[in-house]
Amino acid sequence: MAALESPEDKIAATETTSSSTSDRNYSIRRRTTVTDSDSTGGMGSEEGLKSSGKACDKVNNENQSHMIFNYRPSMPAHRCVRESPLSSDAIFKQSHAGLFNLCIVVLVAVNSRLIIENLIKYGWLINSGFWFSSKSLRDWPLFMCCLPAFPLAAYLVEKLAYRNCISEHVVVFLHIIITTASLLYPVLVILRCDSALLSGGTLMPFACIVWLKLVSFAHTSSDMRAIAKSIDKENAPSISSNADNSYDANFKSLVYFMVAPTLCYQSSYPRNASIRKGWVVRQFVKLVIFTGLMGFIIEQYINPIVQNSQHPLKGNLLYAIERVLKLSVPNLYVWLCMFYCFFHLWLNILAELLRFGDREFYKDWWNARTVEEYWRMWNMPVHKWMVRHIYSPCLRNKIPKGVALLISFLVSAVFHELCIAVPCHMFRLWAFIGIMFQVPLVVITKFLQNKFQSSMVGNMIFWLFFSILGQPMCVLLYYHDFMNQKGKTESK
Amino acid sequence: MAALESPEDKIAATETTSSSTSDRNYSIRRRTTVTDSDSTGGMGSEEGLKSSGKACDKVNNENQSHMIFNYRPSMPAHRCVRESPLSSDAIFKQSHAGLFNLCIVVLVAVNSRLIIENLIKYGWLINSGFWFSSKSLRDWPLFMCCLPAFPLAAYLVEKLAYRNCISEHVVVFLHIIITTASLLYPVLVILRCDSALLSGGTLMPFACIVWLKLVSFAHTSSDMRAIAKSIDKENAPSISSNADNSYDANFKSLVYFMVAPTLCYQSSYPRNASIRKGWVVRQFVKLVIFTGLMGFIIEQYINPIVQNSQHPLKGNLLYAIERVLKLSVPNLYVWLCMFYCFFHLWLNILAELLRFGDREFYKDWWNARTVEEYWRMWNMPVHKWMVRHIYSPCLRNKIPKGVALLISFLVSAVFHELCIAVPCHMFRLWAFIGIMFQVPLVVITKFLQNKFQSSMVGNMIFWLFFSILGQPMCVLLYYHDFMNQKGKTESK
Repeated sequence: MAALESPEDKIAATETTSSSTSDRNYSIRRRTTVTDSDSTGGMGSEEGLKSSGKACDKVNNENQSHMIFNYRPSMPAHRCVRESPLSSDAIFKQSHAGLFNLCIVVLVAVNSRLIIENLIKYGWLINSGFWFSSKSLRDWPLFMCCLPAFPLAAYLVEKLAYRNCISEHVVVFLHIIITTASLLYPVLVILRCDSALLSGGTLMPFACIVWLKLVSFAHTSSDMRAIAKSIDKENAPSISSNADNSYDANFKSLVYFMVAPTLCYQSSYPRNASIRKGWVVRQFVKLVIFTGLMGFIIEQYINPIVQNSQHPLKGNLLYAIERVLKLSVPNLYVWLCMFYCFFHLWLNILAELLRFGDREFYKDWWNARTVEEYWRMWNMPVHKWMVRHIYSPCLRNKIPKGVALLISFLVSAVFHELCIAVPCHMFRLWAFIGIMFQVPLVVITKFLQNKFQSSMVGNMIFWLFFSILGQPMCVLLYYHDFMNQKGKTESK
Repeated sequence: MAALESPEDKIAATETTSSSTSDRNYSIRRRTTVTDSDSTGGMGSEEGLKSSGKACDKVNNENQSHMIFNYRPSMPAHRCVRESPLSSDAIFKQSHAGLFNLCIVVLVAVNSRLIIENLIKYGWLINSGFWFSSKSLRDWPLFMCCLPAFPLAAYLVEKLAYRNCISEHVVVFLHIIITTASLLYPVLVILRCDSALLSGGTLMPFACIVWLKLVSFAHTSSDMRAIAKSIDKENAPSISSNADNSYDANFKSLVYFMVAPTLCYQSSYPRNASIRKGWVVRQFVKLVIFTGLMGFIIEQYINPIVQNSQHPLKGNLLYAIERVLKLSVPNLYVWLCMFYCFFHLWLNILAELLRFGDREFYKDWWNARTVEEYWRMWNMPVHKWMVRHIYSPCLRNKIPKGVALLISFLVSAVFHELCIAVPCHMFRLWAFIGIMFQVPLVVITKFLQNKFQSSMVGNMIFWLFFSILGQPMCVLLYYHDFMNQKGKTESK
């Protein structure tokens, strides 16, 4: 234990011996003049000692200029009644920065240990066999060549509609066929080519994005045409009908929309003035680094955990919980990397190259107070699409808010399931269930948020269910079903 | 992904179709009157789209009363140039409460997993063989009976000094003998009785406390006598010398001092008016619970880690680091429990029972910005003793501050080593080195604190060296030396 002067101690030193010796117990019976006297003092008597800590502190602050040098052992070390910090009510109002730092330090320590343990146990694990197969490259050209066909078809349908060659019902019918085809075609490619996991897992979200974009294009165009027609009708009595007076799809804006980082079609977007080339290069370097990190974590940490696990719904419950919790930490890091790489770096690079202005691809979802807030903030392109093309149309058609919400989650669940089930070549509905499970969570966290009026509770529940339990659980479920199926097909 | 109305979306809905259709690309060539028109709008043109996000937000806020109900797909979803949250400079000024929550959730998850892993691996481990032996109780009566002898002897010396029976030099000499005996006697008892670890580990700090108290008593009394004499001398010319005019030790205040939760003698202390009995019972229940928790963590978590380790300074470095990091987490929890049990609960119970007023046994050391601050705040009784009886006397004797600091740490290091080495029956100086290592840390963290002007850096270094590296390292070093020695003596 060290002995260093604190402000507190300095004041103790300012207490004069005159005041100390005035204590009745000191047995100095004759007091006429006193050496070592000082002008300050008077706190040494028993009454002074009993004075409140507040008064004590006040005196302390007044005398801080004095030196510890004068602090003789004959002066009292304890001079007022004071509470322990943990007993006082003030403890909850104090700064807890130190405890936050402790959390971070412990987290770093625990993670460092897990990294070292993993290195001792498994050595260096990086190999790409699991992710890539020689077949992987076979399905890409096939897929990519046919991809532009769907937007082109959608454009032609709009052109025909503009020229009044086909009726509105036919337009809707054709758009449904095109969008459905744009989704079924990649499913077919992946299933027939027996794509590797990573290859299929990239194609499928890609196809979903194309589907979402085409739906947005068709829906927006249809609405524009409806508005144009209503203008036309209103003007009909006064002005003669004109074929020009209708909505015309613009090919350039459709092409821009298909590549731009948005899912909501509009004929023009807010644009940036120029491309910052150095900035793009920096973001790209970051993208490469973080993608590498993500792959490393998956190969080195997630793979061994998953391979050494049993099916989470069969066997020992305690064992399953242990695996899920062990998986949750690297899984969380991969998730954060994925978010950063795709939603921040990649979409920003794309936006910069296309001079796309509205970069709000996500909001600060990490502070979400309820599960609902999280889903509203983490993926803005899909959220905007959902509001524009699912939720609002539902409300306009007099569907109650709760049902509209349920429908939105249902659409989301179907697409999540598609993106995972097709590349895995099996339908187990775990992702679907995972997304639909969000609906009760939305209700619960909203209730808790209203009840406690604290942002802590909902946020913690969100993190717990989302990253600690939900995702690792899904990863394990899909892995084991995938491996079981693989084993079955190989043994045939 | 969900589709729920956010304030942002509501505003999108307030945009009228009139403004949307004003976009030059919409190809509606005749515009005289427009249906679905609204009084707001004008943001839909390309110039409007390019307006800054700030202006965009302003418009948004003005129109929040409108409903998502009016949000048609023909209205633009992207209406202004905006940065991604992680790109903007504002990210560092935002709340990071969510990330703090994430840290806590991850910490809970990691710890839960370690608990489950431990349970699967070792089962239930509680047994008391290591801590207690049949010999443990043998040395306690011997020790406790002789303990009151030392304060009594010190009191008698003071009485003799008061009656001028012995000179000042003899008083100092006798006090040195008494204090040295009070420290050597328990060492002898522990070594001769071959005490168990826990028994010796309780006796030794006890003996150190007695030593510190006796030194404080002797030092304070000597200073009081010096003051009394100087008063006496000054008064000598005018008034005849009187035997009464000197400092007289008070037996009752000495007894109170010996049991009170302080190490600094003064003839009277600030006192509380009454004892809160219910409060004492509550604190005592907490004390029992947390002591049990501490014992449980040691038996169930620390023991297996330590037993499965190798000597940290021999063998594989990576392996040693892994063990130290693994040990650091339960060790930290035991440390925090120990601090809470002894410095908060036990000293508060003792103070309450004795109506001792000054409960400042510690300050908020967890927020310490430098290592120096930590040592000044965590153990106030020892800190006050150090300032009063080591640091200030050093300064008064013209010793530079740095040297006085070094001496304080040296005394602290000697006593830490004594408290650990004697119960372990071996002197390896690890604790001594550990405490002396604080001196460079004090200098480094003070330098960093001055350089960065941030409380984060020093606090993190403190936590890192103190709880993550230092303590577990010492535990491992002492354990292995202890076990090696035990093995040697048993094989003889």
